[in-house]
Amino acid sequence: MRSPKDFFKPLAVGAPQPLREIPIRPSRVIHFFPPQNEKMVAKLPDIVPTVDVLLGNLEDAIPMTDKEAARDGLVKVGREIDMGQTQLWTRVNSLDSPWCLDDLTTLVTEIGDKLDVIMLPKIEGPEDIHYVDRLLAQLEAKAKLDKPLMIHAILETARGVANLEEIASASPRMQGICLGPADLAANRRMKTTRVGGGHPDYVVRADPNADDPDAPRTTYQQDLWHYTIARMVDACVLNGILPYYGPFGDIKDVVA
Amino acid sequence: MRSPKDFFKPLAVGAPQPLREIPIRPSRVIHFFPPQNEKMVAKLPDIVPTVDVLLGNLEDAIPMTDKEAARDGLVKVGREIDMGQTQLWTRVNSLDSPWCLDDLTTLVTEIGDKLDVIMLPKIEGPEDIHYVDRLLAQLEAKAKLDKPLMIHAILETARGVANLEEIASASPRMQGICLGPADLAANRRMKTTRVGGGHPDYVVRADPNADDPDAPRTTYQQDLWHYTIARMVDACVLNGILPYYGPFGDIKDVVA
Amino acid sequence: MRSPKDFFKPLAVGAPQPLREIPIRPSRVIHFFPPQNEKMVAKLPDIVPTVDVLLGNLEDAIPMTDKEAARDGLVKVGREIDMGQTQLWTRVNSLDSPWCLDDLTTLVTEIGDKLDVIMLPKIEGPEDIHYVDRLLAQLEAKAKLDKPLMIHAILETARGVANLEEIASASPRMQGICLGPADLAANRRMKTTRVGGGHPDYVVRADPNADDPDAPRTTYQQDLWHYTIARMVDACVLNGILPYYGPFGDIKDVVA
Amino acid sequence: MRSPKDFFKPLAVGAPQPLREIPIRPSRVIHFFPPQNEKMVAKLPDIVPTVDVLLGNLEDAIPMTDKEAARDGLVKVGREIDMGQTQLWTRVNSLDSPWCLDDLTTLVTEIGDKLDVIMLPKIEGPEDIHYVDRLLAQLEAKAKLDKPLMIHAILETARGVANLEEIASASPRMQGICLGPADLAANRRMKTTRVGGGHPDYVVRADPNADDPDAPRTTYQQDLWHYTIARMVDACVLNGILPYYGPFGDIKDVVA
Amino acid sequence: MRSPKDFFKPLAVGAPQPLREIPIRPSRVIHFFPPQNEKMVAKLPDIVPTVDVLLGNLEDAIPMTDKEAARDGLVKVGREIDMGQTQLWTRVNSLDSPWCLDDLTTLVTEIGDKLDVIMLPKIEGPEDIHYVDRLLAQLEAKAKLDKPLMIHAILETARGVANLEEIASASPRMQGICLGPADLAANRRMKTTRVGGGHPDYVVRADPNADDPDAPRTTYQQDLWHYTIARMVDACVLNGILPYYGPFGDIKDVVA
Amino acid sequence: MRSPKDFFKPLAVGAPQPLREIPIRPSRVIHFFPPQNEKMVAKLPDIVPTVDVLLGNLEDAIPMTDKEAARDGLVKVGREIDMGQTQLWTRVNSLDSPWCLDDLTTLVTEIGDKLDVIMLPKIEGPEDIHYVDRLLAQLEAKAKLDKPLMIHAILETARGVANLEEIASASPRMQGICLGPADLAANRRMKTTRVGGGHPDYVVRADPNADDPDAPRTTYQQDLWHYTIARMVDACVLNGILPYYGPFGDIKDVVA
Repeated sequence: MRSPKDFFKPLAVGAPQPLREIPIRPSRVIHFFPPQNEKMVAKLPDIVPTVDVLLGNLEDAIPMTDKEAARDGLVKVGREIDMGQTQLWTRVNSLDSPWCLDDLTTLVTEIGDKLDVIMLPKIEGPEDIHYVDRLLAQLEAKAKLDKPLMIHAILETARGVANLEEIASASPRMQGICLGPADLAANRRMKTTRVGGGHPDYVVRADPNADDPDAPRTTYQQDLWHYTIARMVDACVLNGILPYYGPFGDIKDVVA
Repeated sequence: MRSPKDFFKPLAVGAPQPLREIPIRPSRVIHFFPPQNEKMVAKLPDIVPTVDVLLGNLEDAIPMTDKEAARDGLVKVGREIDMGQTQLWTRVNSLDSPWCLDDLTTLVTEIGDKLDVIMLPKIEGPEDIHYVDRLLAQLEAKAKLDKPLMIHAILETARGVANLEEIASASPRMQGICLGPADLAANRRMKTTRVGGGHPDYVVRADPNADDPDAPRTTYQQDLWHYTIARMVDACVLNGILPYYGPFGDIKDVVA
Repeated sequence: MRSPKDFFKPLAVGAPQPLREIPIRPSRVIHFFPPQNEKMVAKLPDIVPTVDVLLGNLEDAIPMTDKEAARDGLVKVGREIDMGQTQLWTRVNSLDSPWCLDDLTTLVTEIGDKLDVIMLPKIEGPEDIHYVDRLLAQLEAKAKLDKPLMIHAILETARGVANLEEIASASPRMQGICLGPADLAANRRMKTTRVGGGHPDYVVRADPNADDPDAPRTTYQQDLWHYTIARMVDACVLNGILPYYGPFGDIKDVVA
Repeated sequence: MRSPKDFFKPLAVGAPQPLREIPIRPSRVIHFFPPQNEKMVAKLPDIVPTVDVLLGNLEDAIPMTDKEAARDGLVKVGREIDMGQTQLWTRVNSLDSPWCLDDLTTLVTEIGDKLDVIMLPKIEGPEDIHYVDRLLAQLEAKAKLDKPLMIHAILETARGVANLEEIASASPRMQGICLGPADLAANRRMKTTRVGGGHPDYVVRADPNADDPDAPRTTYQQDLWHYTIARMVDACVLNGILPYYGPFGDIKDVVA
Repeated sequence: MRSPKDFFKPLAVGAPQPLREIPIRPSRVIHFFPPQNEKMVAKLPDIVPTVDVLLGNLEDAIPMTDKEAARDGLVKVGREIDMGQTQLWTRVNSLDSPWCLDDLTTLVTEIGDKLDVIMLPKIEGPEDIHYVDRLLAQLEAKAKLDKPLMIHAILETARGVANLEEIASASPRMQGICLGPADLAANRRMKTTRVGGGHPDYVVRADPNADDPDAPRTTYQQDLWHYTIARMVDACVLNGILPYYGPFGDIKDVVA
Repeated sequence: MRSPKDFFKPLAVGAPQPLREIPIRPSRVIHFFPPQNEKMVAKLPDIVPTVDVLLGNLEDAIPMTDKEAARDGLVKVGREIDMGQTQLWTRVNSLDSPWCLDDLTTLVTEIGDKLDVIMLPKIEGPEDIHYVDRLLAQLEAKAKLDKPLMIHAILETARGVANLEEIASASPRMQGICLGPADLAANRRMKTTRVGGGHPDYVVRADPNADDPDAPRTTYQQDLWHYTIARMVDACVLNGILPYYGPFGDIKDVVA
């Protein structure tokens, strides 16, 4: 039991007051970049004004040998690049990885005042959010931040989907939720031909033609992701946070 | 905690015994009418025998300036028109509106013996049903009614959908649930081209043709409402009440 | 599911913003009076400055034939007597009685700006609070009040005690909880010799004296109410509201 | 989720309709007897008219070698002895024992029409009641009984106490709950000097006398069982069933 | 409340230790046979090596007059036919039928060491699993089995679907879940033209052509089962058990 | 939702397997010491063999200016003093303090192999345990520990008591729970004259003597802590962990 009155109290002495409403800012274009890659970092000053969100990626696509370099690179970006109206997000490594704790500790204490949203991969239940919620409060107090960092949860397992409503309501830091469709499909043993896409064999087949039972029957391909996204949208809207979709180009602008 | 034994006890001294089973009566044709419109009211005696349900609408489509006139018109209809085998329903104004309390007070005390079902818009959780459940019991006792009024909940928000099972089981008065698709789509920021309908961009696109990757790819339009209606049907069936669909012409006769 | 963000939203258009914290004001001396008794009402101007809370009692001790007179008397008191720093509370009739709805309607619309707290007898679960919560919001909007009325729940059944935590957290209007010890004892079939008191037979008896097994054994009388009050205190503290005790003189100043 | 409508449906085709209210019959004097003991059985015709409940004990106090004899003896008693107005109860062996299934199968099919209440030892959660609830329905259908058997749960572990409310509401067969104080004390590692009794060292000691700090201080022995029994009483009352106390002579007639 | 530590404890003295993980064995081909049919039984030695699972069906398709013969026939098969690497499953009669108790008692005590999985039709909630869980433990102890039997739940009602997550987590015996699509469609009053199939009228219709509003509009048939199967898959994966699909040929290899 | 199967999985790659049962080791004598106090540390080699548990206290009683010194002192003790059969525990600073994160990080990485139990003050709900559970797993993996650290929760608020069962079951690391009676009494606004003690005014007073109503009446002092401790004991036993009592000398050896 936690009273709604307690829900909005800071979790550490000196941490900023939690947000009562999530700010709605445009995130049509989110630019992922590998912070250890100096060539790409060099281009950021030109890119920043053209995107809504600049996202420093520390997780997948960053080789294990580059994890520290990517983290340091992101600190440098946060310190040196003028973000203007563009938001700065990061996707840290998963909570069970050897890097997550250092990712959060370094980023909050070094550039916590520059970061808007921290994406957390492989979130499975409210207990995962509770961990980050308290840790961020302690680090924010240490860094003397005056605005709280927000959390964006990436669901990549069936368990995460089953806990959608509990995850969306686990903390006032929750800014949004999206899916990690490749990992989620693997966890469910779903077959897809493209990440976040469908499968040519998930079809509904028309009934046989009574007059010509052997005639080929029309098939209608179906959306493997309908239930997952529809439930995610409701869990987010009910909690005043934002549903994102991962790379579901086809339906992106419709279901949300 | 409420014992199933208490679930079926009246909520006011002198109120009728709650129903243990919802009567199943035909509701294929539900005729909405604006009770303040005398022309339309004049036609009711001819219409009543041709429909299963006559529904006096006090909510949307009734201008704010006509709210009282509509309420009085419905009282007149309830008193003067012979309903024969046809049910009389009403859709009152939402619980947070300036009219709901007077709608319920007037209708139950004036024509409570004529009314079968009260449709409640914008229901979001069991607490909304609890309010009406107790209020109706107090008014039924005051009006010395001998049969309890039934409730039909209209869901128009993501929160209402997330609470479907709790709403369906909140009171023995629950007769059914339907969706308010226009408001629900707006609350979810879903795009649709027709109320309760789909959207041409919610499609699944066939995989590229390996031999001709640039060839146009077949698209298959999808049902935006599948999850919502499927879950609503189960919540209703499990509680022995009736799922309705709002104006979903295409799928009406299949999913229920 | 209700988001903590929604918990603090008004339940009617035009109703005042719910309180985020309950004001702590002294309530050492609560003076109950029967508002239909003109002699007693005449003495109020002298009594008011000497008490923390003046409570107009409409429930038990008011004969059924005087219910309306008591209600009207309280309206008169609210309008005519200067309360200074003293709070004005009322105890209305129970939710299943023929008077509760009129009690609330009249008091809120006539003297809602003068009332601080409404005591609700025989509360059994959160659904009872949900009814009053919404009803008060509709009446506050109608009366154009600028501060919300608070609710004090009186528990008089085992079911109310079993739902303590849910009742205490059912609405931001909750100001406190107390027990109705006479009815609660009756509902539990507990024997007591004084309202809210103990019973000479609820004792622990010392073990027999090994050397003199037939010697009379010391007995220690026990507190019948310990569990109920201890759990009530925790439910209240956890929700930022105030536990009261009903007339438990002996332990009043210790357990709270 | 189970609808209150389903709660009162039979769990087997042909089983009797579950009870909507538990009959209240006197149980001031409950006479336990070992059904395999022919001498004691011979005295029953004289004892029956003098007691409220005759209880055939198959569990503790019956040696493992006598379990079948006790079961057969009880069948003989049920068939041959005229119970008049006296109820016939039994206490079967625990659900995890080698005898429980045969106890229930034999008793329901052989003398199910004579039995009123089956006491179940070592109940720990609703799942235990669910097992017996369904099993009894299948056996009642097989035996063509026209009234359902009732269940009395004996709590003997901390887990059983923690699940009190769920156990009390697990089935319409629930007639009552009592404690097995010896096993419960052992499970909690509570020290007592008598079964269901207290302990001379559970005392509150008066504060030292300021003027004479070394003077002996008065001690007040306390009731080890207060919380357990108080919560049990509420769980039972809330579900319309009866709390029993096990052998708690001292407080028996007060707390219930 | 049940501690995860207790979840893995045997439910009867002498019953085998519950499984901590469900063994993953192939079940691509499941061969149902009517055990009372001697002709078909005679063919089993040739069939067994060609299938992953041999399933002795005692439920639907077995006439009431053959129920005992089918049960005895399955015992004979279990005793006499060498299963090699093939699993032996059975589908018993539903929990509310006159045969279920004898089905389970006979099969576990006679061929419990040969059986791998017991399919349970018409499962509606965790209480149904709790019944079988405890009963199997008592029978396993009696039969001195050294490995526990597994349970496969068949959902055939809206209530079963609403309780999916609770059913999947009700016991460590849970091996998998599937749907009984014909009964489930009937319970939901869904129209289908083939068992587990779709319906030609469940379509989405393209928007009208603005230039030619009267032109026929393309329709896209939709999958009636998407929500049910997607939620079932997640409930199973989250609990480490296997989702099956009933006869949903078209989508079988995609959604799981 | 978390499956019991997942409950026992490590929360970080490389962290030790969680315990399935808490080891029962004597803790009759727990010696608290201030690790920054060199005089007291010098005496530890003589004290260790005489106590069951040596507890390095970093929280209350350690001045803010000594927090780092105390932490370093405890590391030195863990490294240099031979503990023999004696357990080494620590009480870290509360989760909302500026020291908790560094306390845990330093102790686990420096002397994690020497520590048995970490006492956490001011625990209010399962979310607090979830934070420490995950953090310890990440630090254990970093420090390459081969046995998991255990958690002992200190409850010091009404909310903590209301969440007792959820706290006790929040992690397989949970070793025990105790009360912080001084803070708990303050949070509840309970009056006591000694920490964890009673109050002379919490008494039950005998009924008046009918023959001599004005005669002084016997009073019996009552135990303020009965409910709290009784419920704590059950929550712990049900989860296979150990209840401790804080300094409740009088009843220590009886209620547990």
